[in-house]
Amino acid sequence: MANELPSMTLTAIGIVRSGISQPSRRDCKEIVSDIVIDSSLTEALDGLEEFSHIVVLYWMHQAMSGKVSLKVHPRGKQELPLLGLFATRTPNRPNRIGMATVRLIRRQDNILRVEGLDAIEGTPVIDIKPYIPGYDSVANTEVPPWITS
Amino acid sequence: MANELPSMTLTAIGIVRSGISQPSRRDCKEIVSDIVIDSSLTEALDGLEEFSHIVVLYWMHQAMSGKVSLKVHPRGKQELPLLGLFATRTPNRPNRIGMATVRLIRRQDNILRVEGLDAIEGTPVIDIKPYIPGYDSVANTEVPPWITS
Repeated sequence: MANELPSMTLTAIGIVRSGISQPSRRDCKEIVSDIVIDSSLTEALDGLEEFSHIVVLYWMHQAMSGKVSLKVHPRGKQELPLLGLFATRTPNRPNRIGMATVRLIRRQDNILRVEGLDAIEGTPVIDIKPYIPGYDSVANTEVPPWITS
Repeated sequence: MANELPSMTLTAIGIVRSGISQPSRRDCKEIVSDIVIDSSLTEALDGLEEFSHIVVLYWMHQAMSGKVSLKVHPRGKQELPLLGLFATRTPNRPNRIGMATVRLIRRQDNILRVEGLDAIEGTPVIDIKPYIPGYDSVANTEVPPWITS
C-alpha cells in the first residue's frame, strides 16, 4: 500500500519543555508545560490565544523502537483485555503520533504554556490545532468498561 | 531546530474510500465513508468496535503544495479575521495532518465504516485512536466569535 502513496515526512514545529522524564498518561491533568514553537512560525500562532483549549499533536520519540505489537494490554495492565493497538492509546503504534487536548494557559510570542500535556521533555511537536467543541467533541458516546479500570 | 530531532516519516495504515472529490469542512456530519486498513493490521483493530466514536488522523495529500502561509482567513472567507494558521484548521499547514472525531458505524475485518469524516477519496490514513470522553473532550471552553460565523 505504501508504494501507491505520497511520501509523508514530518517536520517538527516546536518542542515540549516539561521537565518530565517519564510519561504517565494518568494524573497528567495538572502538569504545566511550555511548548516552544520555532521562532520562524511565531506569527502563525496569532489568534490562538482566543481559544481556551488546543489540541497538540506530537511525536512520541521515546516509544519502544522495533516491531509494533498488534495486540496489547491497555496501559500495560495484564488484567485488562488483550486488544488491538488501535483500540488503545499505546505509544507503540505504526506512526508514533500522540494527541492531547490541553488548556492553553497563555501564549507569549512563540511559547505556549499549557496544562494537561502528557509529553516528556524534548518531545517534538508536529501540529497545534484549536479545540472546537461540537467538531472535536461528542455528546453521547459509548466506551468499553476497561476504560475506567 | 529540525537538525536536533529524529527523522519522522509516516507510513499509511490505510486509505479513505468516500467517493468525495472536494473537502467541505462544513456539512460533513452525514457523510459515510469506509476506511480500508492495510490487511496486515486487521488484528490491530480488535476491540475498536466497542467504541462509538474514533479519532482519525489522516494526511491531507491534496492540500496546496509549496509555501505555507503563516496568516490565513478561516475557511478562505475574507470577511473573517486574518489569523495565524495554527489558530485555524486550514489544511495548508507545515505538517498536513487532518484530525476528525467520527462515529464508528461498524467494523468488518479491516474496514471501518464511519460517519462524519471530511476526507476525500484516496486520503492516506495514518492513525486511528479510540475517542475517550474526558480525555479528548472538555466541558467548559472558550472560542472566538468567528468560529460560529
